Amino acid sequence: MNVEIISIGDELLNGQVVNTNAAWLGEQLTAAGFQVRRVTTIPDRVEEIVTALREAREHSDVTVATGGLGSTPDDVSLTAVVRFFNAHLREDPVIAADIHAFFAGLGKQPNAGHLLRARLPENCIPLRNTNGLAPGMFFSEKEKVVAFLPGVPHEMKPMFTGQLLPRLIPLLKTPVRTKTLVTTGLPESRIDEYLKDVQDEFSGIRFAFLPATTGVRIRITSPAPPGNEGASLLDRCEAAIRERIGAFIIGSGTITLEETVGKLLTERGLTLAVAESCTGGLIGDRITDVSGSSRYFQADVVAYSNKSKIDLLQVPAETIATHGAVSGETALELAERARAVTGADLGLSTTGIAGPTGGSTEKPVGLVWVGFASGARTRAFRYRFGTDRRRVKERAAQAALDVVRRHLSDLPCHPRPEMER
Amino acid sequence: MNVEIISIGDELLNGQVVNTNAAWLGEQLTAAGFQVRRVTTIPDRVEEIVTALREAREHSDVTVATGGLGSTPDDVSLTAVVRFFNAHLREDPVIAADIHAFFAGLGKQPNAGHLLRARLPENCIPLRNTNGLAPGMFFSEKEKVVAFLPGVPHEMKPMFTGQLLPRLIPLLKTPVRTKTLVTTGLPESRIDEYLKDVQDEFSGIRFAFLPATTGVRIRITSPAPPGNEGASLLDRCEAAIRERIGAFIIGSGTITLEETVGKLLTERGLTLAVAESCTGGLIGDRITDVSGSSRYFQADVVAYSNKSKIDLLQVPAETIATHGAVSGETALELAERARAVTGADLGLSTTGIAGPTGGSTEKPVGLVWVGFASGARTRAFRYRFGTDRRRVKERAAQAALDVVRRHLSDLPCHPRPEMER
Repeated sequence: MNVEIISIGDELLNGQVVNTNAAWLGEQLTAAGFQVRRVTTIPDRVEEIVTALREAREHSDVTVATGGLGSTPDDVSLTAVVRFFNAHLREDPVIAADIHAFFAGLGKQPNAGHLLRARLPENCIPLRNTNGLAPGMFFSEKEKVVAFLPGVPHEMKPMFTGQLLPRLIPLLKTPVRTKTLVTTGLPESRIDEYLKDVQDEFSGIRFAFLPATTGVRIRITSPAPPGNEGASLLDRCEAAIRERIGAFIIGSGTITLEETVGKLLTERGLTLAVAESCTGGLIGDRITDVSGSSRYFQADVVAYSNKSKIDLLQVPAETIATHGAVSGETALELAERARAVTGADLGLSTTGIAGPTGGSTEKPVGLVWVGFASGARTRAFRYRFGTDRRRVKERAAQAALDVVRRHLSDLPCHPRPEMER
Repeated sequence: MNVEIISIGDELLNGQVVNTNAAWLGEQLTAAGFQVRRVTTIPDRVEEIVTALREAREHSDVTVATGGLGSTPDDVSLTAVVRFFNAHLREDPVIAADIHAFFAGLGKQPNAGHLLRARLPENCIPLRNTNGLAPGMFFSEKEKVVAFLPGVPHEMKPMFTGQLLPRLIPLLKTPVRTKTLVTTGLPESRIDEYLKDVQDEFSGIRFAFLPATTGVRIRITSPAPPGNEGASLLDRCEAAIRERIGAFIIGSGTITLEETVGKLLTERGLTLAVAESCTGGLIGDRITDVSGSSRYFQADVVAYSNKSKIDLLQVPAETIATHGAVSGETALELAERARAVTGADLGLSTTGIAGPTGGSTEKPVGLVWVGFASGARTRAFRYRFGTDRRRVKERAAQAALDVVRRHLSDLPCHPRPEMER
């Protein structure tokens, strides 16, 4: 079943915003078994939108448009929809109630302009917006579907997943089942190599490797014939993958490493404290992105200066003087001191050279040490993470969290620790 | 002059790769004075490419296509070009020499397959590839231009800048000049309102408001007639904008608030320490994204638990017991203690309810206090940031950094402090 995505917005054409919505929708729709045959990006102009809608509906079964649903003058999608469907507007009571509730959450009242957004074409099914004001729209006519979603990603995504996708799935004639395994710690080429025979054995299953800074997601897709055959094929394939690289799999779906670590800490009833240097707060930021993290996250001391490593964490000045701030010895001390000063069960630390300046032959940009103290023992791990400052921080934070995951899951360390005491 | 971009590649449609090429080309072309009217993303299929080329050439003066120029079986752009132009191939001697030189650089010899890439349509001007093997192509027929570039960004970008853009610029009848001002602290609707009369006065200038979680970027674009008139018009318009909302402008171009704050701290020779609660490390993460931040960033204590607020920062237990962890009083204490325990000149703090759980009627989800201690005085600011956990964190971190910016720039507080001592 063919899908065309229409992305609406001048900001996408003049390059001020990268069209991540289309990529995200493409991934979701492909995973669900749809074929995305075209993405068309057009300006906020009524005639252009109407033309694109006409072209898309002619070539594809499903048209998904995003953007232009706000209330500023450049938000003209509703005008285009009215013209395209020759539609009449009426106020939708559920959407009107949602708008009132949205403003109540800010301690305010909506004005008449805000409430205008509840006026929608009579022939559409409104799609509620759980994260903003503008509702989406779903039209179904003569076996062709047209849907409108907001352009703001954090409004668009839950609307797609919660409300649009469930209406699209039943349209599929050849449904597929899909599963995504989230890995960390192995490059794509290594995964491909380790899974060579699995890919050969399960030739009916489509494999996709989706690399990102934090790891590679493995997506397996199988046709879903009536009955449960597709599901069991997928299960067997997953088992074969886990047999090869199970220790690198942190979970499935859209899970993040901070969620996995949070779940493991909760299960074990343990608390964690962090002492960050080169990652600058990113580890704490990621841990606290998980709702409920206050149960297991004690504190994070971002000791960026040597002075703060000594003053706040009582790292011996001698350790820094002898081995340097970026050293296995300092990483060990930081991890142990994080535990000690907070009373947490586990202590995690990073120290490294994020770059782009500050490197030397002996300690190049991208060199990062991670320390981990469990009470029973303390270990330090050494990494090289390239030369891009942001990527060094992201890869270091990921590696550090993965040390905690492996400890809590009783998995062997990867990489092996360089120092231990 | 209208441009259409055609992005070729299955990986762009199924979401495995985000189409950053189109955004980059859109920005470059817009800045040069072209109007990008459409981006069309299509699969690696000959018929789709031919159709898209035909549609684009009909509607636009210039067509820029990227992707599908390699030598793997899915690289079918050359086949499509041959069909579209009904072209004959001949070996281009310069490109053939480039291919020999490329392999010489690797200490190797090209094989016959590699040299096939030098066979190009007779009616094209070849575009040399300084970073890879596949050459680009430039076609000009009946006042319409069609260009092909490789899809790999680090091959595409220098080819565009060095070889394609210089051939496109002379086609422009009305070049433009553009400037982007980065604001924080005002919603788009308020900016639009404050700049009503500026927009009326400078009717020859195009205004674009680009909202993000952290603020709104204002882009102004003017025609650039011969001489310097366009530049001075833009300067006068910028001055008028600054007269209205200058205190909300943190800089121009692609500057971030953490860069502005870093520059101000460096200029004043001051150091900063942070005590974060609800933002969880995000402020430290942002500050340390700036290379050289170790000069002014002392430390960041993410005191997530009440225990750590008391143990690590010596916030009086009584303050928390009496007023709660999320209170102006605690924010004041956190900011003062951040200064005190680190010896930094300035102390910044956040405490709030990031949600989605943990709110009450009196202290709802999204309530955030920011504290700031300069030594001379300490202030606490109160905010409401909605109900999405990540957005609450992002908006709180932005608001906190903006308190520092306003202090260092001698600007009045916005919002006004709720508490002061």
